[in-house]
Amino acid sequence: LGVPPLPDDTPAGDGVRGWLHSVARSHVEVALKHPARLIANALGSPPADVIAQAHEKGMLVAALAGKAEHALSHVERGVDIVVAQGYEAGGHTGEIASMVLVPEIVDAVGDRVPVLAAGGIGSGRQIAAALALGASGVWMGSAWLTTSEYQMGPLQSSVQQALLEATSSDTVRSRIYTGKPARLLKNRWTESWSEAGAPQPLPMPLQNILVAEAHQRLMRAGDPSVVPMPVGQIVGRMNEVRPVADVMASLVAEFDEALSRLDRAR
Amino acid sequence: LGVPPLPDDTPAGDGVRGWLHSVARSHVEVALKHPARLIANALGSPPADVIAQAHEKGMLVAALAGKAEHALSHVERGVDIVVAQGYEAGGHTGEIASMVLVPEIVDAVGDRVPVLAAGGIGSGRQIAAALALGASGVWMGSAWLTTSEYQMGPLQSSVQQALLEATSSDTVRSRIYTGKPARLLKNRWTESWSEAGAPQPLPMPLQNILVAEAHQRLMRAGDPSVVPMPVGQIVGRMNEVRPVADVMASLVAEFDEALSRLDRAR
Repeated sequence: LGVPPLPDDTPAGDGVRGWLHSVARSHVEVALKHPARLIANALGSPPADVIAQAHEKGMLVAALAGKAEHALSHVERGVDIVVAQGYEAGGHTGEIASMVLVPEIVDAVGDRVPVLAAGGIGSGRQIAAALALGASGVWMGSAWLTTSEYQMGPLQSSVQQALLEATSSDTVRSRIYTGKPARLLKNRWTESWSEAGAPQPLPMPLQNILVAEAHQRLMRAGDPSVVPMPVGQIVGRMNEVRPVADVMASLVAEFDEALSRLDRAR
Repeated sequence: LGVPPLPDDTPAGDGVRGWLHSVARSHVEVALKHPARLIANALGSPPADVIAQAHEKGMLVAALAGKAEHALSHVERGVDIVVAQGYEAGGHTGEIASMVLVPEIVDAVGDRVPVLAAGGIGSGRQIAAALALGASGVWMGSAWLTTSEYQMGPLQSSVQQALLEATSSDTVRSRIYTGKPARLLKNRWTESWSEAGAPQPLPMPLQNILVAEAHQRLMRAGDPSVVPMPVGQIVGRMNEVRPVADVMASLVAEFDEALSRLDRAR
């Protein structure tokens, strides 16, 4: 892929992410020392003692769910908010798309906790659609990656360029990032794992440890065609860098427009 | 899979479907002799002469699109209605889920032709969501498979039983049905194509010719765990056989409820 090696003074293990129990625990401990209002867990239900500690400090606990049975399990364990995350979402995600998943999860747990819709949401029309499906609100991730406030340091320009150029067809759901299926920008790096003779990804947490150094090299290469970057299918509509305030104003205006249009459909 | 052979008097070639140009042409010729109001094309744009003949007879022509560029191509060729069909749909379908695809196609061609949303729609909430996304209406397929009026003859009971029992996780998008990706019920038949040593599917139209006899055997076996059946992720909500009139009444009532709920969100 033509990606240069790391400088000799790069710390060993730099770039290994938190998909290890020990690392996740240390993140939670830091979070619990801050006056956060919400802790959200992306993979599985948070451990019972974490939920208890968060509640003691007056924090709410959210958890992502890709199936109704996951949502039921979250609520039984004391989670306060369920995020129904569809196939089109970025990062770790399941097989069921938002149009089908959101009503299923609302019907499973919506009488007990608020359900937020995630996956494919980047405009007020999509917020209106999520609420029509029964969600109490939405959870947006990818859309913030192309806001002015999003700071990635010196690596920013190649990542943002890749995001701005990508269409909704330029993502792939793959196990190469962590060992579990996650949606990523599709590019020369992800495609190289589909070539004849490419190895199968290792199970979590080994895969991220395997590719941690490669990720660092790919990020530093300054080449938009190789960045290892989780993002949802909504990336096709992320076509300019805008301040968060502008994005929020658009979301509200588009939501109002969508509701007015629906009124006329009656 | 324990599936019995066909009776000796089965006509050769029975079960080969229309994914051959010659077969599709003969279907169109029959359709054009009837007083139909609409011809819909699922794979690609209809040929120019078919569009012209349909228009001469006062028929409208619809075409399915899984990407905005397909929709643009359809409209340039004279298609009257575009069906934006998301990943969650049954049968041949693309990678982009409805939540992302519908607004993209509405923005690409919605000022020139009506756009209908397809994929994941089986309730009035989902119709409201589709309209919130900008669609002029919806196109439902799977939901009709479990209506009283749907008649498959003697093979019906095992197919309907399989549909009623399936959850939204029990489908798979695979090339084994025709050679192009199509969403099917996931069962012992589809899983056998993922086993070690299983062959790769052939390209269209060869794959359907290859499996035509197997499809006949699987359908006649009377075993719900092997039926080769295209269906969307909405199959998880198809849990009883109902008359079409009841389904329509529910769709209208749920649509009204969803709009009333959205009104209160303002």
